[in-house]
Amino acid sequence: MTLNKKPKMKRIEDFKSIIDRYEVIFFDAFGVLKTHTGLVPGIERTFAYLEAQKKEYYIVTNDASRSPAQLAQSYHNKGLNLVTADRIISSGQLTKDYLELKVEGGYVAYLGTTESAHYIESAGLKTLPVSDINSSNIDQVNALVFMDDEGFNWFEDINKTVNLLRKRTIPAIVANTDYAYPVSNHDVSIAIGGLAQMIETIIGKKFIRFGKPDSQMFMFVYDLIREYRPINKKDIVMVGDTLQTDIMGGNKFGLDTVLVLSGNTLPQDADNRIQATGIVPTYICDNAVIGPQALNL
Amino acid sequence: MTLNKKPKMKRIEDFKSIIDRYEVIFFDAFGVLKTHTGLVPGIERTFAYLEAQKKEYYIVTNDASRSPAQLAQSYHNKGLNLVTADRIISSGQLTKDYLELKVEGGYVAYLGTTESAHYIESAGLKTLPVSDINSSNIDQVNALVFMDDEGFNWFEDINKTVNLLRKRTIPAIVANTDYAYPVSNHDVSIAIGGLAQMIETIIGKKFIRFGKPDSQMFMFVYDLIREYRPINKKDIVMVGDTLQTDIMGGNKFGLDTVLVLSGNTLPQDADNRIQATGIVPTYICDNAVIGPQALNL
Amino acid sequence: MTLNKKPKMKRIEDFKSIIDRYEVIFFDAFGVLKTHTGLVPGIERTFAYLEAQKKEYYIVTNDASRSPAQLAQSYHNKGLNLVTADRIISSGQLTKDYLELKVEGGYVAYLGTTESAHYIESAGLKTLPVSDINSSNIDQVNALVFMDDEGFNWFEDINKTVNLLRKRTIPAIVANTDYAYPVSNHDVSIAIGGLAQMIETIIGKKFIRFGKPDSQMFMFVYDLIREYRPINKKDIVMVGDTLQTDIMGGNKFGLDTVLVLSGNTLPQDADNRIQATGIVPTYICDNAVIGPQALNL
Amino acid sequence: MTLNKKPKMKRIEDFKSIIDRYEVIFFDAFGVLKTHTGLVPGIERTFAYLEAQKKEYYIVTNDASRSPAQLAQSYHNKGLNLVTADRIISSGQLTKDYLELKVEGGYVAYLGTTESAHYIESAGLKTLPVSDINSSNIDQVNALVFMDDEGFNWFEDINKTVNLLRKRTIPAIVANTDYAYPVSNHDVSIAIGGLAQMIETIIGKKFIRFGKPDSQMFMFVYDLIREYRPINKKDIVMVGDTLQTDIMGGNKFGLDTVLVLSGNTLPQDADNRIQATGIVPTYICDNAVIGPQALNL
Repeated sequence: MTLNKKPKMKRIEDFKSIIDRYEVIFFDAFGVLKTHTGLVPGIERTFAYLEAQKKEYYIVTNDASRSPAQLAQSYHNKGLNLVTADRIISSGQLTKDYLELKVEGGYVAYLGTTESAHYIESAGLKTLPVSDINSSNIDQVNALVFMDDEGFNWFEDINKTVNLLRKRTIPAIVANTDYAYPVSNHDVSIAIGGLAQMIETIIGKKFIRFGKPDSQMFMFVYDLIREYRPINKKDIVMVGDTLQTDIMGGNKFGLDTVLVLSGNTLPQDADNRIQATGIVPTYICDNAVIGPQALNL
Repeated sequence: MTLNKKPKMKRIEDFKSIIDRYEVIFFDAFGVLKTHTGLVPGIERTFAYLEAQKKEYYIVTNDASRSPAQLAQSYHNKGLNLVTADRIISSGQLTKDYLELKVEGGYVAYLGTTESAHYIESAGLKTLPVSDINSSNIDQVNALVFMDDEGFNWFEDINKTVNLLRKRTIPAIVANTDYAYPVSNHDVSIAIGGLAQMIETIIGKKFIRFGKPDSQMFMFVYDLIREYRPINKKDIVMVGDTLQTDIMGGNKFGLDTVLVLSGNTLPQDADNRIQATGIVPTYICDNAVIGPQALNL
Repeated sequence: MTLNKKPKMKRIEDFKSIIDRYEVIFFDAFGVLKTHTGLVPGIERTFAYLEAQKKEYYIVTNDASRSPAQLAQSYHNKGLNLVTADRIISSGQLTKDYLELKVEGGYVAYLGTTESAHYIESAGLKTLPVSDINSSNIDQVNALVFMDDEGFNWFEDINKTVNLLRKRTIPAIVANTDYAYPVSNHDVSIAIGGLAQMIETIIGKKFIRFGKPDSQMFMFVYDLIREYRPINKKDIVMVGDTLQTDIMGGNKFGLDTVLVLSGNTLPQDADNRIQATGIVPTYICDNAVIGPQALNL
Repeated sequence: MTLNKKPKMKRIEDFKSIIDRYEVIFFDAFGVLKTHTGLVPGIERTFAYLEAQKKEYYIVTNDASRSPAQLAQSYHNKGLNLVTADRIISSGQLTKDYLELKVEGGYVAYLGTTESAHYIESAGLKTLPVSDINSSNIDQVNALVFMDDEGFNWFEDINKTVNLLRKRTIPAIVANTDYAYPVSNHDVSIAIGGLAQMIETIIGKKFIRFGKPDSQMFMFVYDLIREYRPINKKDIVMVGDTLQTDIMGGNKFGLDTVLVLSGNTLPQDADNRIQATGIVPTYICDNAVIGPQALNL
């Protein structure tokens, strides 16, 4: 028996030819549009082409550290002006929706920067950094959100969070499910999703996770599109650099998927990782950049 | 410091008073409408009341062993005629949607009964019981679905499934995420979700899971409703007997939730389990039955 | 069928009657001899009785934060003079043995206090706090040890540890497997074992764990005894307050075990936890204290 | 910064040169001495050399399906007469020791062949295949042992085991921790350790596991040697084909280790797997075979 272990997928040189087949493109941010050194070179041509072709696009990101407006501003600062706040969907917005529907009053405690608390405030709720919890307000804390890995004292506030969740039976929401993120060519930093996983293991409770690969992230954008036009899942493609989040999530939601090799998945590892995980993208591309000649058309 | 560990939820005697506050009711099946001994006594009054009040309802179940029509027939056989096929949403239908969008031709192999293969056939795909896989057709197998724990030889076909997934890099879909289900007052039986979890651990690949608590299950019903009317999540309540699936899933999707004590969660354990898991229902009720006097109104 | 779920074990009022049946007693430290408020009241009588009866005893602890001499001193400071350094066996000593046998030269990096580095130094190896790792010495780091949760900057040094283990393929040793420990009636603190578990999950490597319930801990003490006398496992009893470490480890090693209810396992929870975990002690006792009248004999 | 990710280990052509450095050699069985097609070609020369040099050796195996005498006979049948029963240590013998020390009377239920029950009988206890458990004897069942993946009806007896452990709070012992084993060039079979892991997950109890990488396995052989001679861990080397069991276990126990590439770890994958897992053998060798010329010396 000759076994055909190779999955059904296509390696494609030309990212433009993929875009041309779909009506709506979802992009992951980190590893696709930018890396720790700045914008992926040439990515601005991709957005110029999308504008020219009147294609719709969304940035679908697990980054809940800042508001969509602030995230858009950071792209503008780097020279990518076409990415506007209304095109950026972060897992923070799912957290906001959840809090609006499920938390009535009191405080929402959080781990993260003051900027990341934006999503809680926009749900009309009072925020409380974990560092400010004390015996006089702990009984008014009705939810805890893991927003970002910065903006607090790890030793003091992580331990304080463990004790809050042992004392109060309240929902704990993880707004960014990633375990780590790159900060340089050689180094990563632990993300808030990694800290949340440790605390969940220690106290044995079940946390609520938003962000890719969870379907609710994709459903949120899908619903947003359907508010102004009909769309079929067959006409959307998800572009990402990570098999376990972008590709797994996109596949499960029923979308076609493109794995790009400009971030988390290195060109030499792609085939091995696909076979090891069983997560198969529809296409593989070097990156999400299209050539200059495409813009002349 | 006096700590208030008690979560914010209400114990309510009267299931009718809950129904009256919502426009749409989602019911879990096993442990809510029926148990291993038959229908929950009096549950037919609940559906008579819903009809009389013109309330909408859906049965949202992880049971992918039979088609909605067959599941409805089983209720009729027990004397509950008001539950019709169009009101039953099973995780099998999510599997069907996934296969339609993501699998193009070839065979879909499955573990389960011939009845459970219904969902694959209705996606327009050719089915292949794992027992029929051989060296001449294995290369045409483009997906594997875990449908049901019956209908196959455990020793031979579970081992064959492990080897299929080692040889072919294809998606593996788990249509029922439950690990076990009760078969008598004292005994449980391992569900297909338990077998799938073992195989996933052994081969180290990532499977695609549908069924509560996954959001996609709730989104499916929510979309179904929105096709014929506008609805707000605030006007839907999920009724279930299991914290980890029904209540966790309903809460995360933003719905109010009712834990009933007629199934998986015993009355004496409810408070402890809620505190241990941190999964808090909006209400707790003995069962989903409403009294005879309600029908006289 | 009437089921007998009750395990075979005996609730015993009198800890003395247990001691009388064995030749050697192993004690866990935290929750058995002391709590966060100090010595367990009356525990000095237990040791006076052991001396009077010429019974052998060992303190078998997962606390690798200090040397046996320092741990003994802390008991003396509290008024328990009979516990001497040669009777205290910590998981730090297993770490020392491992390093001696398996690491040849270079630095051993560690997370923990300067005191906890004692075990590395006593193996004749050069120590390096994680905070002092830099590009000029990282290539000489030949092992990493998780010793204690204090003595370093969590944010900086935990992230630095993640990156060390991504760059260097070296053994990572966890000298204390506990996830958390109590610091007051209401609060716990995350132990180094909890931080190690997070890092292991994030980088996907396999760490080496010493400390209960691991057999190597028990074997170490067993070997120590056999150096000066013959002993049968039937003549040793392990006394502890935690099912998952003390009782699980003692049982697996073939020892009889006593669960005391003066620490981690509350009197009202003991039966439930034993049934839920399936970890059954030979005896249950309120505490490891013996009455004053026993000393008059 | 130039990073040196390479671990400290040596690739060695000549297995003989390794043997020459140690006094005692521990061998894994499957993948080292034999594969599914029979003996590793030339392995008989290794044992002839060991005899000639008067080196001590032990086969340390997780195979509890048969007694040491039966395992030895299977080597003799293949033409390897030098491997005798007293040189074979299986995880079944640890199970026997445990049962002797910790179970007093009643039945020991088991999953496995009649041959595998040998270890229970040799502990002087009454055996009961899970298939024979009924309402009249279930209360006399005082332990359950997972011995082997054959000899029972998977569907019926695995479900029966789940229900036994839900009804009776008794120790569950896993005599073979492996998840799967090869049965041909292309296929594996699920081992009893894989089935035990599924049941442990479903019922949420803690099982007792013997077999590599657990230290108790190594301690058993170490103790055996010390009964007739003094030995230092530095003078023992463990030879195995699997990083997670043979090498991890040997390293943790303080032994030098040899990874051979004749079984589970393929030559082209060895470096990647060592870096991915962080489990570093002292040496890597193609196989445990020594050349014909060595015997002429």
